[in-house]
Amino acid sequence: MNEIDSATVTAVLTRFIADAVAKTGHRGAILGVSGGLDSAVVLALAARALGPAGVTALLLPYRMSAPESARHGRNLCQQLGVECHEIDISPQIDAYFARFPAEPRMLLGNKCARERMSILYDHSVRRQALVIGTSNKSELLVGYSTLFGDSAAAIQPIGDLYKTQVFSLALHLGIPAEIIAKQPSADLWPGQTDEGELGITYRELDEILFQLVDRRLSPAQVVALLDLPAERVARVRQRIVRSQYKRTMPPVAKLSNRTVGLDFRYLRDLAR
Amino acid sequence: MNEIDSATVTAVLTRFIADAVAKTGHRGAILGVSGGLDSAVVLALAARALGPAGVTALLLPYRMSAPESARHGRNLCQQLGVECHEIDISPQIDAYFARFPAEPRMLLGNKCARERMSILYDHSVRRQALVIGTSNKSELLVGYSTLFGDSAAAIQPIGDLYKTQVFSLALHLGIPAEIIAKQPSADLWPGQTDEGELGITYRELDEILFQLVDRRLSPAQVVALLDLPAERVARVRQRIVRSQYKRTMPPVAKLSNRTVGLDFRYLRDLAR
Repeated sequence: MNEIDSATVTAVLTRFIADAVAKTGHRGAILGVSGGLDSAVVLALAARALGPAGVTALLLPYRMSAPESARHGRNLCQQLGVECHEIDISPQIDAYFARFPAEPRMLLGNKCARERMSILYDHSVRRQALVIGTSNKSELLVGYSTLFGDSAAAIQPIGDLYKTQVFSLALHLGIPAEIIAKQPSADLWPGQTDEGELGITYRELDEILFQLVDRRLSPAQVVALLDLPAERVARVRQRIVRSQYKRTMPPVAKLSNRTVGLDFRYLRDLAR
Repeated sequence: MNEIDSATVTAVLTRFIADAVAKTGHRGAILGVSGGLDSAVVLALAARALGPAGVTALLLPYRMSAPESARHGRNLCQQLGVECHEIDISPQIDAYFARFPAEPRMLLGNKCARERMSILYDHSVRRQALVIGTSNKSELLVGYSTLFGDSAAAIQPIGDLYKTQVFSLALHLGIPAEIIAKQPSADLWPGQTDEGELGITYRELDEILFQLVDRRLSPAQVVALLDLPAERVARVRQRIVRSQYKRTMPPVAKLSNRTVGLDFRYLRDLAR
């Protein structure tokens, strides 16, 4: 996979964030900070783009979240000088699941992710702050996210960086070692890790994705090039195909000459 | 505006719904039924497409919702023979706003809309049922919806029908008079009506939208054709432009040769 030039990437992404906030007429940015790597990197970029005073971080733990997650998030905000608020989402989540069992436990994770989105958008209005997303390219391509949850935001600054590239950028940005050293995890229950759930390491996943998507190699070529079991490459490719619905708008049934999302598509312009 | 041929529209839309459910491997459809016109029409279409047993309706009132809304929804489900469950969203909503005032009250509406989406997606997994949206073309074009709330769904069957066309279709489908006769309303507080909030009647709004969007007339031409104040047409056009962000995916900052949503766009294919 390509090495990234972290200085250039930082320059591009801080400009991207600053432009989006200015063009949409917001006063700043807001994002959810989980204590993990992706949100740490986006927070650091936003603080550089807008100044620390232009950024609000929300810590949104559920009662089963690891206590060190919030601690790592708070430490990061303190280091960056960013205002940070902690809102426990347990009352709302538990009020819902008191009436329906959270089985399978993925249901709990999805509900928490959507509640966090809902709170971020609520505070977005209160603070006139643009909601900044923290999805990376690995997640977006394999659909490892909750639709209308953690993937829902106004802009996606690191959506074109694979997870392994986000690690490189984190080192450049001076993200604390306690965050960089952790196993990536959605932090929904104790012991959960991304790599455990995905059934593959990010190093291998990213390499397969890069060859399939960026270099447009066929699965057979990727199997030969990387010397991997064909089944492993096929599984990644299948995840890309099956998650395509998460990367597009809901389709509208066509009945007229100009249909939203089909023929009616203004250029996306953030200007007012 | 064009008259719709309700029989043809019904045939197209029932096929659209049935195809989407079959291709995505779901066992049926699920949608939120508010007691209003749009969700009534989509429910009737889904019941025709899948049979009443293939559809689940959720009534998701907040404690400030009008009591007749749930009654109208229940009556409709009974008439169509569709299974219907009522889930009060007040405990979760009030647990959140106990810590933050719901001011301006739009914040309450947005939180309720997103909570309903979250519950629909939760039950979508439990029932292996596809979430069907109820947005119409008038709403989509002027952005009269909550982002990642009521506009969030897997498919939008009536997204290419203006509100006035949805009325015609409702008559054809035999929607009860108590639903057709009501003033359209988001039902967030007593006395709220869509037309009051939008500051224009649907008849006039839809005519302006049709001329601007479907016929591609300029604002000046629409003013002359419809004999309306220029300011009124300008305001509608401005709403279309300003709400474009609700009709597109969050933009990803471009860093590589193939970026999600830009160069990397598979044809949307619902097949597994």
